[in-house]
Amino acid sequence: MLMRINVGIIGASGYTGGELLRILANHPSVEVSYVTSREHAGKPLHYVHYNLRGYYKGLRFHEFKLDELTEKADVVFLSLPHGVSLKYVPDLLNTGIKVIDLSADFRLKDPSMYKFWYGFEHPYPDLLSKAVYGLPEIHRDEIRNASLVASPGCNATATILALLPVARAGLIDLNRIVSDVKVGSSEGGSKPRAGSHHPEREGAIRPYDAEGHRHAAEVEQELRLITKADVSVSLVPYAVSSVRGALASVHSWLVREVDDVEVMKAYVQTYSKEHFIRLVRAVPPGYPDPKYVIGSNYADVGYAVERRLRRLTAFAAIDNMVKGAAGQAVQAFNIMAGFEETLGLENPPLKP
Amino acid sequence: MLMRINVGIIGASGYTGGELLRILANHPSVEVSYVTSREHAGKPLHYVHYNLRGYYKGLRFHEFKLDELTEKADVVFLSLPHGVSLKYVPDLLNTGIKVIDLSADFRLKDPSMYKFWYGFEHPYPDLLSKAVYGLPEIHRDEIRNASLVASPGCNATATILALLPVARAGLIDLNRIVSDVKVGSSEGGSKPRAGSHHPEREGAIRPYDAEGHRHAAEVEQELRLITKADVSVSLVPYAVSSVRGALASVHSWLVREVDDVEVMKAYVQTYSKEHFIRLVRAVPPGYPDPKYVIGSNYADVGYAVERRLRRLTAFAAIDNMVKGAAGQAVQAFNIMAGFEETLGLENPPLKP
Amino acid sequence: MLMRINVGIIGASGYTGGELLRILANHPSVEVSYVTSREHAGKPLHYVHYNLRGYYKGLRFHEFKLDELTEKADVVFLSLPHGVSLKYVPDLLNTGIKVIDLSADFRLKDPSMYKFWYGFEHPYPDLLSKAVYGLPEIHRDEIRNASLVASPGCNATATILALLPVARAGLIDLNRIVSDVKVGSSEGGSKPRAGSHHPEREGAIRPYDAEGHRHAAEVEQELRLITKADVSVSLVPYAVSSVRGALASVHSWLVREVDDVEVMKAYVQTYSKEHFIRLVRAVPPGYPDPKYVIGSNYADVGYAVERRLRRLTAFAAIDNMVKGAAGQAVQAFNIMAGFEETLGLENPPLKP
Amino acid sequence: MLMRINVGIIGASGYTGGELLRILANHPSVEVSYVTSREHAGKPLHYVHYNLRGYYKGLRFHEFKLDELTEKADVVFLSLPHGVSLKYVPDLLNTGIKVIDLSADFRLKDPSMYKFWYGFEHPYPDLLSKAVYGLPEIHRDEIRNASLVASPGCNATATILALLPVARAGLIDLNRIVSDVKVGSSEGGSKPRAGSHHPEREGAIRPYDAEGHRHAAEVEQELRLITKADVSVSLVPYAVSSVRGALASVHSWLVREVDDVEVMKAYVQTYSKEHFIRLVRAVPPGYPDPKYVIGSNYADVGYAVERRLRRLTAFAAIDNMVKGAAGQAVQAFNIMAGFEETLGLENPPLKP
Repeated sequence: MLMRINVGIIGASGYTGGELLRILANHPSVEVSYVTSREHAGKPLHYVHYNLRGYYKGLRFHEFKLDELTEKADVVFLSLPHGVSLKYVPDLLNTGIKVIDLSADFRLKDPSMYKFWYGFEHPYPDLLSKAVYGLPEIHRDEIRNASLVASPGCNATATILALLPVARAGLIDLNRIVSDVKVGSSEGGSKPRAGSHHPEREGAIRPYDAEGHRHAAEVEQELRLITKADVSVSLVPYAVSSVRGALASVHSWLVREVDDVEVMKAYVQTYSKEHFIRLVRAVPPGYPDPKYVIGSNYADVGYAVERRLRRLTAFAAIDNMVKGAAGQAVQAFNIMAGFEETLGLENPPLKP
Repeated sequence: MLMRINVGIIGASGYTGGELLRILANHPSVEVSYVTSREHAGKPLHYVHYNLRGYYKGLRFHEFKLDELTEKADVVFLSLPHGVSLKYVPDLLNTGIKVIDLSADFRLKDPSMYKFWYGFEHPYPDLLSKAVYGLPEIHRDEIRNASLVASPGCNATATILALLPVARAGLIDLNRIVSDVKVGSSEGGSKPRAGSHHPEREGAIRPYDAEGHRHAAEVEQELRLITKADVSVSLVPYAVSSVRGALASVHSWLVREVDDVEVMKAYVQTYSKEHFIRLVRAVPPGYPDPKYVIGSNYADVGYAVERRLRRLTAFAAIDNMVKGAAGQAVQAFNIMAGFEETLGLENPPLKP
Repeated sequence: MLMRINVGIIGASGYTGGELLRILANHPSVEVSYVTSREHAGKPLHYVHYNLRGYYKGLRFHEFKLDELTEKADVVFLSLPHGVSLKYVPDLLNTGIKVIDLSADFRLKDPSMYKFWYGFEHPYPDLLSKAVYGLPEIHRDEIRNASLVASPGCNATATILALLPVARAGLIDLNRIVSDVKVGSSEGGSKPRAGSHHPEREGAIRPYDAEGHRHAAEVEQELRLITKADVSVSLVPYAVSSVRGALASVHSWLVREVDDVEVMKAYVQTYSKEHFIRLVRAVPPGYPDPKYVIGSNYADVGYAVERRLRRLTAFAAIDNMVKGAAGQAVQAFNIMAGFEETLGLENPPLKP
Repeated sequence: MLMRINVGIIGASGYTGGELLRILANHPSVEVSYVTSREHAGKPLHYVHYNLRGYYKGLRFHEFKLDELTEKADVVFLSLPHGVSLKYVPDLLNTGIKVIDLSADFRLKDPSMYKFWYGFEHPYPDLLSKAVYGLPEIHRDEIRNASLVASPGCNATATILALLPVARAGLIDLNRIVSDVKVGSSEGGSKPRAGSHHPEREGAIRPYDAEGHRHAAEVEQELRLITKADVSVSLVPYAVSSVRGALASVHSWLVREVDDVEVMKAYVQTYSKEHFIRLVRAVPPGYPDPKYVIGSNYADVGYAVERRLRRLTAFAAIDNMVKGAAGQAVQAFNIMAGFEETLGLENPPLKP
């Protein structure tokens, strides 16, 4: 493995940027060669990412310059806010650099969905069809040849991974689905706000976007693709007091009597070859808990059936910073680069 | 207010026992005169309840003796595990003492439900019909004359209070309801277990009883009573890392197009005269969060509608130790005693 | 207790303002009649203090106006930042209103200390001698007749209360004292900052002001007064991940062999008549822990001696928002008003 | 790096055992070939260490058998309670296997110290002189040739690393030192106890062993060795509500006026070549915080001087599970094996 790819990160001072840097620090085939931050330009990385003291010696944050980037990097990760990425992407693609965008700006195929969920007219509808939704468990082959990958949202990732097997197997009513997602505070990003102030956030169990979170758009898009049917998903997220971690509880109703073997089979068939999906069923601790994937790219997936009411709840637990953001982006990068998909992502989660 | 009632607490060394003692410490019309604990008999209360140092001077835990209790107390609270309370209640009632039982042993009217949900044949089916389900917002008048009050479970309290207005108003499909309840660690009681060990519980987002929590039985019973219709409720609880607090998110589907005024009206009509129910809607912080009821007997109630899918989620946030246990029991006690319902329960929650 | 005193709070939208409102909500002899907040003028109190929904109906935040205040209130609490209070106090005192200031602006007697520790020339040195340091355990008699009370800092309160008995008894070297204080996040106030952002603060154990925290000035002043000797105290605070609570560990060296009885005697003599001081020694849980005073005005005090090295560590655990701020201010208020010192402060702490 | 060493772990179901397994999972030159647990014999590893699902396929916990161990492993880690390790070590050494013991049983050179601090007569005083105290920053050369390494305690590691530079440079009074150590709950091990019950531990700031923690014995031993002088250290630990992390604040007094350059020089000289020591001084976040070493083998070291009082506080922040236990043991293992010292330990800490 002598080949090394030069990588740039735009918007590298936020949480997903920092997490990319953490993961890539030991990626054997990556050289991070260019990182940008408007606010912190000129500073060494560890002035912002205290954990990285001792890594990336000599590297500093830059103001973004297109020619510097393309000179130094072969692939670029965008860790920018929604609505900002899309200003960068066309010019980047024109230079021939490969782009992995962690924002929502290119995840949806239908431009009208941007109007509905994000409140703006998408300026590059053509690029939407070119972009590949970067969930390897669904789009591995397309990612391989993509020039633009739109890396999935964390709530969407957890919801899709939980739901995919039973939706595909036709076991559930596809129009009565609620994904109740509990997330840690890192999901809100690195900017302090009133709601993220420690005294207010610690101990909170606080619904937000309860009238329907916009990651539902990605979930519905992907599940329609898979099921070739109409799918409606409500996504209701909550701030709980963890720092990392997201658990999606996707509540649904079975369309008929189904025994455990049949449900289990759906999960096994979908995921038996997926390295980063671990089934948690009838083994300790009983159900997926994001606590036990922290720091890793795993999604722990499981389910429960209440036979009395034909309710099936599908669970997926991820580290929102890894499988929900930077780790999944590196997984897609590995696929694009022709590397082992697990490269740089082999470390076990922490416990406790 | 010269009258003082002598009160006993059986099983006073656990969390709900301690919470009763905390609340009653400043109740102007209560004298706690007899408290029992098998494990801690002989010790002063503050050897177990460190917060109570300086209160209840002279009072110690006793081994339970029926004659001592009836000599010293006019009303008794039972803070005992499920299946234990029912061994005490018949004898207690025979002495004429009034009983407020915080366990599940007398909450369900239909004896067969004990077989189904709790796995035992109820030995006193006649007492089940005599017992009053101690939710004042539904059974205030019966509580007034009750000799046996079965105080509701915390997950049930939150679910019922969230759901009651829209169920009663006929706005939702009563057979597709999922109550997704997130609870703090105090709900598990005072006995250390593997799952409550701090390193494992802190940061957890962990489903339990995901095939259907047994508090669903209470919820269905009470909602059938109110709606005179069949009601099915799935109740799925989660351990999150708060210490106190429970949030019920009750997901349901509207039976028709409903505007906000109509939903709001249902809540206002049901709760406008209820001191301990506070409506949180279109005011900060947006939705109920148990963080802001901690230490108090309030239930903060609210809802969200996703018009696109006709989903209505009803929320109720409580302190599981207060409105979910000891506070609600004291509220019922006040009603039984003919006191102001709020007596001893007037303190605002903590923030932050 | 028919008498009611009208009270104003300036700067009522911050954490200490909110805590005053929480405590005074059930004070039987107080009517909160005027509250100010520049930022939130016009809003009902519960738009900021979510816990207070249902309390103080009809009361709103006002822009401060001197004549409105004096017309409506007999006593005023100032919950303002350091350096801001002192702009209000002279005018307030001129109107004859009694002032309880929760800032540091009038705590120090020696004006030069403001230059040294706070970096400004104090503009009203004459008022410094008039102000009474509002620690009832030391200055009860002067508080009774004070027109201006300077309520102590939370780190100072914990350090002084821990140290007072052994300092007064002459048991320790007064020039080698380090107070290592661990505090919850509420101590930093209600304004979000980078260091208080939940993802960064949760799980932190972070020294700040480690070259000497300025509350040392108050501690030294008060201990010199008591001991009539020179006293040097280093105060090093740490952010830990609790929300409320402060524990001072005051490390010192015994000047001679001392047995436990002698140390215990020093504590008992100093505090046996103090309602809000509870001695924790040789009883569970072993040493003071702020966890068990939360929500209350108690200071739990204790100590440990390492005989081998003649080290004595004195501990005091407080709720930084109560005995460390608003509760202590209400305690002083009660004394000034001639009320029972405990009025409105009788509630036990929470556990767990 | 084709060579692989077979490794056994005795007592592998506890926290330090699990952490060894986590770290060794990706160690390129280690094959974990034998793990024991009395309680969990027969189970796959991930039944206990949920994080390790997907790793160590085929490996299960065994009952310890000496011949099985020596047949399968070249080096063995002991993750056993104090007083238990010493029963295994003599037999193990007789077989010629190399032993890294994570307990305290062979850390102290002076047998009488076991009597004083641990309350037992050490049965193998000869082995004490043979054992090497496994702190690479002091004993690297001896570790290289050791057959028995006694891996340091976590509180001791943090205290020694903070103090070493200034003690060696003769800058501080060696007889007035207090190490005030704040630790997360994982330090207490994996067995649930009353004090580790989540509702009681979360939010706690709780002194324990406040009359002098026994890790002081290791600290004094090592510092006497380095300084050739008498050294007295008080060690006072506290439970705070983090899960991982320990911060030692070592309070001391300078023996003379010292400027910052001189102190800094002491730290730089001691640690400039130490890979796992990172100096935090005059750069963000100001002082070491264990939050930013979590998951890694780093010790972040720094200090503060209060010139006014000639107080110097030295800080060291570690992950108690890594540099405080399993990581340090692997670091010693690498040295013994002739590997790069950092092998398997290269991953950056998490943030946030």
